[in-house]
Amino acid sequence: MLFEISELESLAAARLDQMAYDYTAGGGDEEITVAANLGAWRSLRLRPHVLRDVSKVTTATTLLGTPVSTPIVVSPTAMHRLFCPEGERETARAAKAAGALYIVSISATTSIEDIAAAAPSSPRWMQIYIQQDRGLTRDLCARVKAADFEAVVLTVDSPVLVHNARNRRNNFNVPADFVLPNLVPRVAPGSLDIYSLVTGFDAAVTFDDIALVSEWAGGLPVVVKGVLRGDDAARCVDAGAAAISVSNHGGRQLDNVVPTARALPEIVDAVGGRAEVYVDGGIRRGHHALMALALGARAVFLGRSVVWSLAVAGEAGAQFLLEELTDELRIAMAMCGLRVPSDATRDLIAEIS
Amino acid sequence: MLFEISELESLAAARLDQMAYDYTAGGGDEEITVAANLGAWRSLRLRPHVLRDVSKVTTATTLLGTPVSTPIVVSPTAMHRLFCPEGERETARAAKAAGALYIVSISATTSIEDIAAAAPSSPRWMQIYIQQDRGLTRDLCARVKAADFEAVVLTVDSPVLVHNARNRRNNFNVPADFVLPNLVPRVAPGSLDIYSLVTGFDAAVTFDDIALVSEWAGGLPVVVKGVLRGDDAARCVDAGAAAISVSNHGGRQLDNVVPTARALPEIVDAVGGRAEVYVDGGIRRGHHALMALALGARAVFLGRSVVWSLAVAGEAGAQFLLEELTDELRIAMAMCGLRVPSDATRDLIAEIS
Amino acid sequence: MLFEISELESLAAARLDQMAYDYTAGGGDEEITVAANLGAWRSLRLRPHVLRDVSKVTTATTLLGTPVSTPIVVSPTAMHRLFCPEGERETARAAKAAGALYIVSISATTSIEDIAAAAPSSPRWMQIYIQQDRGLTRDLCARVKAADFEAVVLTVDSPVLVHNARNRRNNFNVPADFVLPNLVPRVAPGSLDIYSLVTGFDAAVTFDDIALVSEWAGGLPVVVKGVLRGDDAARCVDAGAAAISVSNHGGRQLDNVVPTARALPEIVDAVGGRAEVYVDGGIRRGHHALMALALGARAVFLGRSVVWSLAVAGEAGAQFLLEELTDELRIAMAMCGLRVPSDATRDLIAEIS
Amino acid sequence: MLFEISELESLAAARLDQMAYDYTAGGGDEEITVAANLGAWRSLRLRPHVLRDVSKVTTATTLLGTPVSTPIVVSPTAMHRLFCPEGERETARAAKAAGALYIVSISATTSIEDIAAAAPSSPRWMQIYIQQDRGLTRDLCARVKAADFEAVVLTVDSPVLVHNARNRRNNFNVPADFVLPNLVPRVAPGSLDIYSLVTGFDAAVTFDDIALVSEWAGGLPVVVKGVLRGDDAARCVDAGAAAISVSNHGGRQLDNVVPTARALPEIVDAVGGRAEVYVDGGIRRGHHALMALALGARAVFLGRSVVWSLAVAGEAGAQFLLEELTDELRIAMAMCGLRVPSDATRDLIAEIS
Repeated sequence: MLFEISELESLAAARLDQMAYDYTAGGGDEEITVAANLGAWRSLRLRPHVLRDVSKVTTATTLLGTPVSTPIVVSPTAMHRLFCPEGERETARAAKAAGALYIVSISATTSIEDIAAAAPSSPRWMQIYIQQDRGLTRDLCARVKAADFEAVVLTVDSPVLVHNARNRRNNFNVPADFVLPNLVPRVAPGSLDIYSLVTGFDAAVTFDDIALVSEWAGGLPVVVKGVLRGDDAARCVDAGAAAISVSNHGGRQLDNVVPTARALPEIVDAVGGRAEVYVDGGIRRGHHALMALALGARAVFLGRSVVWSLAVAGEAGAQFLLEELTDELRIAMAMCGLRVPSDATRDLIAEIS
Repeated sequence: MLFEISELESLAAARLDQMAYDYTAGGGDEEITVAANLGAWRSLRLRPHVLRDVSKVTTATTLLGTPVSTPIVVSPTAMHRLFCPEGERETARAAKAAGALYIVSISATTSIEDIAAAAPSSPRWMQIYIQQDRGLTRDLCARVKAADFEAVVLTVDSPVLVHNARNRRNNFNVPADFVLPNLVPRVAPGSLDIYSLVTGFDAAVTFDDIALVSEWAGGLPVVVKGVLRGDDAARCVDAGAAAISVSNHGGRQLDNVVPTARALPEIVDAVGGRAEVYVDGGIRRGHHALMALALGARAVFLGRSVVWSLAVAGEAGAQFLLEELTDELRIAMAMCGLRVPSDATRDLIAEIS
Repeated sequence: MLFEISELESLAAARLDQMAYDYTAGGGDEEITVAANLGAWRSLRLRPHVLRDVSKVTTATTLLGTPVSTPIVVSPTAMHRLFCPEGERETARAAKAAGALYIVSISATTSIEDIAAAAPSSPRWMQIYIQQDRGLTRDLCARVKAADFEAVVLTVDSPVLVHNARNRRNNFNVPADFVLPNLVPRVAPGSLDIYSLVTGFDAAVTFDDIALVSEWAGGLPVVVKGVLRGDDAARCVDAGAAAISVSNHGGRQLDNVVPTARALPEIVDAVGGRAEVYVDGGIRRGHHALMALALGARAVFLGRSVVWSLAVAGEAGAQFLLEELTDELRIAMAMCGLRVPSDATRDLIAEIS
Repeated sequence: MLFEISELESLAAARLDQMAYDYTAGGGDEEITVAANLGAWRSLRLRPHVLRDVSKVTTATTLLGTPVSTPIVVSPTAMHRLFCPEGERETARAAKAAGALYIVSISATTSIEDIAAAAPSSPRWMQIYIQQDRGLTRDLCARVKAADFEAVVLTVDSPVLVHNARNRRNNFNVPADFVLPNLVPRVAPGSLDIYSLVTGFDAAVTFDDIALVSEWAGGLPVVVKGVLRGDDAARCVDAGAAAISVSNHGGRQLDNVVPTARALPEIVDAVGGRAEVYVDGGIRRGHHALMALALGARAVFLGRSVVWSLAVAGEAGAQFLLEELTDELRIAMAMCGLRVPSDATRDLIAEIS
C-alpha cells in the first residue's frame, strides 16, 4: 500500500514547496467553501441495506456512452508537471491502468496530442475555457477532436478570477521553462503568468456557446462544468449540454457558495434524466462517491487528491489513489446492499436534520 | 469504587499497547460514525417527570423471555484474552454476578463450552456470522444449542470488511498462541490472521437465512444485529427474526451511516411490537440507556466499555461496570419518575431542534 | 467596581480550594446540562424595540405579592459558610441591601432564625426537601412560618442523588465544625456527611404533598422547584402550587435534560397565568434575565454566581453582584424599549433557527 | 497591494495600543453579537448564476439619489484621530478617491466644516444622536445643512450605554488634547470623558423625532440607524424616515440581539420599497456585500475595517480598503451573473438549513 488515503494531503504537503502546496490546497477569499465542500459529504448519513446478496459487486459504468471501470474520474487540474516529472503523461497512464476517465485541463503542461499518445485507447475528455479570441478556442476544439478525445468539458464558473490570498502571499509563479501548450498563443519561456492568461478568458460566454463548442469540436458532446443551480442546469440542457458537472471549482473561486453535495439533488431534479450529472468538491473517500451516486450523480471528479497523489508517488501514486478509492466504493456499495452503481437511490441518504 | 466511568477509556488506553487500544477504539474510514454515535445520545434531551413515588425502582426485565437484572447487555466483542488473562471466562462470571445477559462473540478466544461452564445457569446468547462453508456454521449452531445458549445473534452488517486505518498502520495481529475455538477450521498457532478468517464469511447472506440459522440451532430464536433501516427491520421480522439489534457495528464498519440513536425510532415504529428491539453504539452512561428505553429499545449493548473494563480490572472491572451503569440507569429512572423499564415512553425525549 | 461579571467564576476559582470550587461548578454525570443551560440563553436572540421613551425604567416587581427591587433572586444554595465567614448572614444582608428576594436553602449553615434576624423586614423564602421522617419536615415548616418567611420552595427534582464525578474524586466533605441547623436531627460535629443526610430525603413525594407542605407551614404559598415539563407544571398548579420554578438543579442532577431556557415557554403556556413561573440555570448576565422575562418568567434565580461572589468579596460581593446584574437588566430593558418588567413579551425573542 | 483584507485586523492590532484596539474590536457584555454578526454572513450560501454575459459589471448606484461608485459606505465611527494623524480629513479624502459615501460620526475629532473642506463635492452624510439639550442638536443639524451634507443619520440603538468589559478594564480614555468639535458644549482639553458625553444623549427619543430632525436640518432626508425589527422599521417609514439602517451597533451595545444578516430580510419586507434599506455588522468582504444586496439592502456600511485601515496606512489604507472591497464585490457580481447591483435578488441566497 503506497499511502493511507487519510494521510495523502499531509504527505503531499511535506513533499511540495509552500507555493505549490498552497496553490493546490487554497481557495477563494476566506476558503469557507473549501471546508464546506468537505463538511457537506461528511454531514450526510447513509442508510445501508442488509441481507442482500453482495457477493458480486461492480463499480463499472458508462459516461456519455464510454465504458469505464469506475465512476471516479480524474478532474481537470492545471500543470501536472508541478507535481511529477512527466506531468500529464503520468496521469494519463495512471488513469488508463485504473480504468478511469481522465479529463485533461486546458492548463496542462503537456500537449493534448502527447497526452493522447501516452495512454492510447483510454477514455479522455478535454476541459476548456472560451478565450476572448474565439478563434483560438475553435482551433483547440478541432485539435481535441483530432486527438480522439470523446467530449469537451466547458468550465463556466470562472468569468473572472476571485482573490486568492495564498497565491498572492506566495507571489505564485511557475518555472520559467513551463509551457501550457494547449493555450495559444504559447507563452515565451520565463514569462509565464498564469493569471494574465486567465484574464484572456471570455467573460461574455452564454448558453448559446454550448452548441458552438460542440460544433467547433466536430460534434463532440459538451459537459458544462461549474453549475450550482437547477434553473441554470435546465437551461444548459435546453441549450444542448450532454451533461452537467456540479462544481464550485473546489472552492477555488467565489467563496460562500452552496456546497456541491447540497446543490446536487436540486440539479438532478431539474435535469430530470435528460443529461448525465457529475459532481466534484470535497470527495475524498469511496463512500463519499457512493453518497454522490445516491443523490443522482453518475460520476464524481477528483481534483486535489489526484495532484497530491502525483506529488507523493507520481504515476503509481495516482493509480493507487484511483484503485483504492474505487475499492472503497465497491466496499461501500456492498455494505449498502448494492451490486451496480445504478442500484444507488436517494433513500440511501437520511433526511438532513 | 474501581474507576470513574468517565475515566474508563483513558485508564484502558494506559494499560493496553497501542495496537490493542487502537483495535478497540478505532472505526472504519474516517471514524465519523464512532463520534456520531457518541454525539447522538448526548444531543438528545430528557424531559423528566417529578412528584411520582420512586421509592421503589427496578431495572429488571426480560429479554426474549429470559429474566435479567438489567437491560444492559454485554455486546459480542472479539478476543477477550487480549484484555485479561482468562478472557471470556472472566466476562461470563462478571455478567452472571451483575445479572446481565452476555452475548458471546464468534471470535471469542474461549470455546463456547468453556464459557458456558464458567458461568452456569446465567443467560447467554451466541453471536455468529455465516461462513462461506455453511456446514461450519450449521455445526457451530448445533454446539450453541447443545451448550444451552438461549438465542443466536446473527450479525448482518459485515458482508465485507471496511478499511480501518489504525489496524493497517499497526499491522494488527494477535499473539501466536491465540485460537478462536468457535471458528472452524481452527487456525494453527502462529498463523492467526483474523482478517483472512473474516474474509471467509459469506457475502451472499439474505433474509431467507434467518430461518435457516434458527433451524440449525434447534429452534433457538434469532436476533438480527446490524440493522439501520425500518424497511429492512420489518423484512427481518417477516422472515422470522425474534429481535432486531440496531447497530452500525460501533462505527467499525461503513462510515458516515446514521447514528444508532437516530435509527432506533424508525426501526421501533417499523417493527410495531412484533419483535424486541435492542441498540448499541455510543452508550456509555446509564442515562443513555434510559434514552434508548424511551425510544423503544428493550435492551442496550455495551461493547467497548466492557473490554476496557476487562483491561482495567478484569472480571471485577466488568462486574463493576455493569453494576455501576445499572445503578446510573436506576437513578435516571427515579429522576424521571419511572419505576420499571416499561414506564419509559417516547415523550421523555424532547423533540430534536 | 468589585469585579467584572465575566471574571467572577475565575476569581472565585482562584480563592476556593479545589474541593469547594468543584462542588460549586460541577454537575451530574458528564456535565452536559451545565454547559447546555449556559448555551441555551446565549443561543437566543433578542429583537429590541427602538424609539420608545425609556428615560424612566424600573426593574421593580412583586413575587407572590411581595415587592422587590429586582426580579433577580438569590437561589437556594447550600452551606454558605464554605464561601465566607458569616455565611448566610452575609447573603441575607446583601440581598436586603439590593432589594432582592433571598431563598434560604435547607442545607444552610445558619439557623433560619439567625438568618431572619440578620436582615429583618427583608423578603425571604425557605427551600425544603421532604424528609423520610415527615415529622421533621412538618416541624421545620412551622419554624419557617414562625420566622416570618413568606413562602416555602419545595424542591422536587432530587428524589435520588445523581453521580457527581468531581465530588467523588475530591472525596467531598465539609469542616468538622459545620452544622446544618435546619436539618434535624442535627449532626454531631465531625461526622457530617451531606450525602447521608440527603439520602434521608423522601423519594415517595407526590403532587399531594404540595398542599400538605402549605398546611404544615400555616398556609404559606408553596413554590414547586425543579419542573421541566408543561404537563407536570399544570398538575402542580392543580394541586395547589402558587408558583413553578423551572429548574434542572443547575445541571447538578440528571444530565442531558432539557435546558431551562428551552423548557420555560412550554411551562409558561401550560400554567396559563394560573401561577407565577420562575427559572434558573445558566443565567449569568442581566440580558439573560430579560430573555427569561420575555419568555414568561416573573423572576430568575441565581445560584453559582451568588456563592462565587461570596467567595470573592463576601457580603459586599453578593450585593455588588445583585446590583450589577440588576443594572444590566435595566440597561437591557431600556435597549429593548421596555419601562417595566411586564413590558417584556415573547416576540422580543427571535424564532430559533 | 497595501494589505490582505484577511490580515487587516491583525495588522491594526499590531499598530494600535491595547486600549485603542480593544475600543475598536470589543463589544457589549459577552461580545456574542460581535461574533454572531460575522458568523451570520459566513453561514449564508450563494447560488451563483452561470453563462450570463458579465464582460461589463458596475458597482455604481445611488443612495437617496446621490450617485456613488460603490454601495460600500464608510459607517460613522468615532474619533479617527485615534487612528491616523489627520483623522477624519484622511477618511474624507479616501472616500472621495474611492467614490464612496462617507457618514461622519457626531463623535468625530474634526469639525464637520473642516471635513467638508477636506473633500469638497464628495457625498457625505452626518450621523447624530439627539442630546438631552435639544437646542444643541438643532444647532448641529443647521450646521450639517450649511456644510452641504446630504442626509442626517439618526442613531436610535443607544438610549443608554451597555457594559463594555474591555473599555472598563483598560479605563478607556482619550488624549487630553482631543476635542469632539461637533458635540457642543465643547469639552475642555484634558477633561474629555466620552462616556459622560454619551450620557448626555436623550433616552426619550421617539418616532416623532424623525420628522423633527429633518426639520432642524432644513429638510434633509433622515436615515434611522439601529433598527432590528420589521415593525419598528415600518413605523420609522410612516414617521418620515427616508431610509432604514439595519444595525446592532456592530455588537457594541446590547448583546445577544439578532445578527443583522438575519434581521435584514424581515425589515426589507416590512419596508416594502417605501424607503431604502442599508445594513452593517460583520461585513468584511465583497461577497458579504453582495449577500446584503441580494437580501434587499441598497448599501452596506463598514465600521471597524475602515478604522483599522486608517491605523495601518492612513488615508491610503482607507482608500485601498474601499477599492479592494469594491473590486471583490464586482468580482462576486460577475461570478453570480449580475451586471448591476439591482440584478441581485433574494434567490441568490440558499434557504438556510
